[in-house]
Amino acid sequence: MKTRAAVATGPGKPLEIMEVNLEGPRAGEVLVEIKATGLCHTDEFTRSGDDPEGLFPAILGHEGAGVVVEVGEGVTSLEVGDHVIPLYTAECRECEYCLNPKTNLCQKVRATQGKGVMPDGTSRFSLPDGTMIHHYMGCSTFANHTVLPEISLAKVRKDAPFDKICYIGCGVTTGVGAVINTAKVEPGSNCVVFGLGGIGLNVIQGLRMVGADMIVGVDLNNDKKAFAEQFGMTHFVNPSEVDGDLVAHLVELTGGGADYSFECIGNVNVMRQALECAHKGWGESIIIGVAGAGQEISTRPFQLVTGRSWRGSAFGGARGRTDVPKIVDWYMQGKIDIDPMITHKLSLDEINKGFELMHEGKSIRAVVEF
Amino acid sequence: MKTRAAVATGPGKPLEIMEVNLEGPRAGEVLVEIKATGLCHTDEFTRSGDDPEGLFPAILGHEGAGVVVEVGEGVTSLEVGDHVIPLYTAECRECEYCLNPKTNLCQKVRATQGKGVMPDGTSRFSLPDGTMIHHYMGCSTFANHTVLPEISLAKVRKDAPFDKICYIGCGVTTGVGAVINTAKVEPGSNCVVFGLGGIGLNVIQGLRMVGADMIVGVDLNNDKKAFAEQFGMTHFVNPSEVDGDLVAHLVELTGGGADYSFECIGNVNVMRQALECAHKGWGESIIIGVAGAGQEISTRPFQLVTGRSWRGSAFGGARGRTDVPKIVDWYMQGKIDIDPMITHKLSLDEINKGFELMHEGKSIRAVVEF
Repeated sequence: MKTRAAVATGPGKPLEIMEVNLEGPRAGEVLVEIKATGLCHTDEFTRSGDDPEGLFPAILGHEGAGVVVEVGEGVTSLEVGDHVIPLYTAECRECEYCLNPKTNLCQKVRATQGKGVMPDGTSRFSLPDGTMIHHYMGCSTFANHTVLPEISLAKVRKDAPFDKICYIGCGVTTGVGAVINTAKVEPGSNCVVFGLGGIGLNVIQGLRMVGADMIVGVDLNNDKKAFAEQFGMTHFVNPSEVDGDLVAHLVELTGGGADYSFECIGNVNVMRQALECAHKGWGESIIIGVAGAGQEISTRPFQLVTGRSWRGSAFGGARGRTDVPKIVDWYMQGKIDIDPMITHKLSLDEINKGFELMHEGKSIRAVVEF
Repeated sequence: MKTRAAVATGPGKPLEIMEVNLEGPRAGEVLVEIKATGLCHTDEFTRSGDDPEGLFPAILGHEGAGVVVEVGEGVTSLEVGDHVIPLYTAECRECEYCLNPKTNLCQKVRATQGKGVMPDGTSRFSLPDGTMIHHYMGCSTFANHTVLPEISLAKVRKDAPFDKICYIGCGVTTGVGAVINTAKVEPGSNCVVFGLGGIGLNVIQGLRMVGADMIVGVDLNNDKKAFAEQFGMTHFVNPSEVDGDLVAHLVELTGGGADYSFECIGNVNVMRQALECAHKGWGESIIIGVAGAGQEISTRPFQLVTGRSWRGSAFGGARGRTDVPKIVDWYMQGKIDIDPMITHKLSLDEINKGFELMHEGKSIRAVVEF
């Protein structure tokens, strides 16, 4: 079949909107009509050419929502008409990782996904001239139709709006999940969140949902204060307005240090601050942001020996097929909010404008609707 | 009263054996006759002058066992004749730290202990000329008699031999406790232990006790292999004999990485290897060794984001008054072994020889008996 897609033809180039060829689903695969997709910094990281593992040509996008159009041989958990959210972290429920309750990093399709192909080693997408187009993060949601492994799709309720729940495919789950799955924050905790972008806001509303006491947001931009307060932030700190050491200030503000801190930027210096503002004895710091290639974090080991722990979170520690439908429910029940974060709606033809808005800091989330 | 002690008169000097003045216990304090004391690297770190916080003159030693001789006003949990192990990490059972189940770092006497004095700000020890002598780590076990806060003494069974259980005051608890309290290692785990000195051996026997499957010891000295096997080590790796990358070798040996790794040396480069050989998705690395002043650990944050966690352990995460008596029981029940680790017995007059043995790598533990 043919479908419309935004194709990343080479590093640093604007996406090209075109009709591409799409093969139907093979065994264990599912054809999905994408109804809406968010634009995430990770897409831009690859589009820009900064991602050392970026492959071209590719159809980017990993934060979508849509409807099952066709299922391949052997697919049992999904049927035509089901509403689904694509998962860049699959959940096969049978690999060593899925069977270990401590991790969500299913490895079943990891190797082929990293190579931009389906589990059988081939791509379903091609350019009009027949050139193979790479899949991206196992999702490729910047296309009106895409093919995914059955284990990379979360089935969700049909009354949830695509243009909002697409954000659960990455940003919402990453932030809320880091709070509930990775950190397992207890009610009454004092927490510090570094970076009030899309991920930070979702960490904040996750903290509100689980009953944290103090939710301190740290950002260099004062304009973000009012918006973050809508999602539950209780205190705001602008590092450029702090006299003296930021870490000491945060330790004092939180009465001894954060029970949990979250780095939502990808800045290795901030990661150190996040660790060191954690409470002696029990503070945990969770790295969510993705640092630039080759960058390293550092601290004195004394920070750990005196009881702090340093951890990370990928896709919010969520097992997608199991946890994503729950987060959709929480959205529909009003436990978490998404609508105000979807700051811009675009057509596929306008997708490059979405990256411009991202760079200008004007959007929390721009969503393309098909 | 007068008592005999080994006094550290200045940085880098041999200890001087002499008679010193000791005041009796004040309110909340206890006079203990020390029967035996181990010599630990931490004592040597301070004696040598490397410890930037070292105070002189001081009576070092923090790994002892003895008998209560006199109790001060208000002491209720101990009486004359009780057998006790001094605790450099107190357990007051009422501070914010003691009341938080996530930490053992009681802060009640922390500040004064760090200044080498009793909680009331004064020292009980003085030189014959009246000069104040500092207490050390709240213990000062290199003296035939010493005074400690009640909350810094663990009451233990009377049938346990002093010359063995003194080692539970530091090394044994630090190693075994890191396994059971900090890491909470599950039966069947694959573990890697870096450094087969006194701490590493106790980590190994802790792992054996809780039913770990694979217990890999890593040390540059092949002579340590046979001894470590006595305590439960199942595999030995000498980094100097590994072709290529040590981390890759350990990941392969453990079938994907260590469920838990332990750094028992204090080398920041080894701390990085210990983290990076931990299993993707769930591996935890525990820093036990004490690094040199100002040294830093580093890694790529990707190591944490993909599911490894970096933590530390002080005094094995043990709450001394509660946990040390249990470890004494385990020793008496044969669940853990101590006797072969006490490689040298010395008199107080020979104490400087103990530090020489330590430097020559000839001792696991030298114990001074009074």
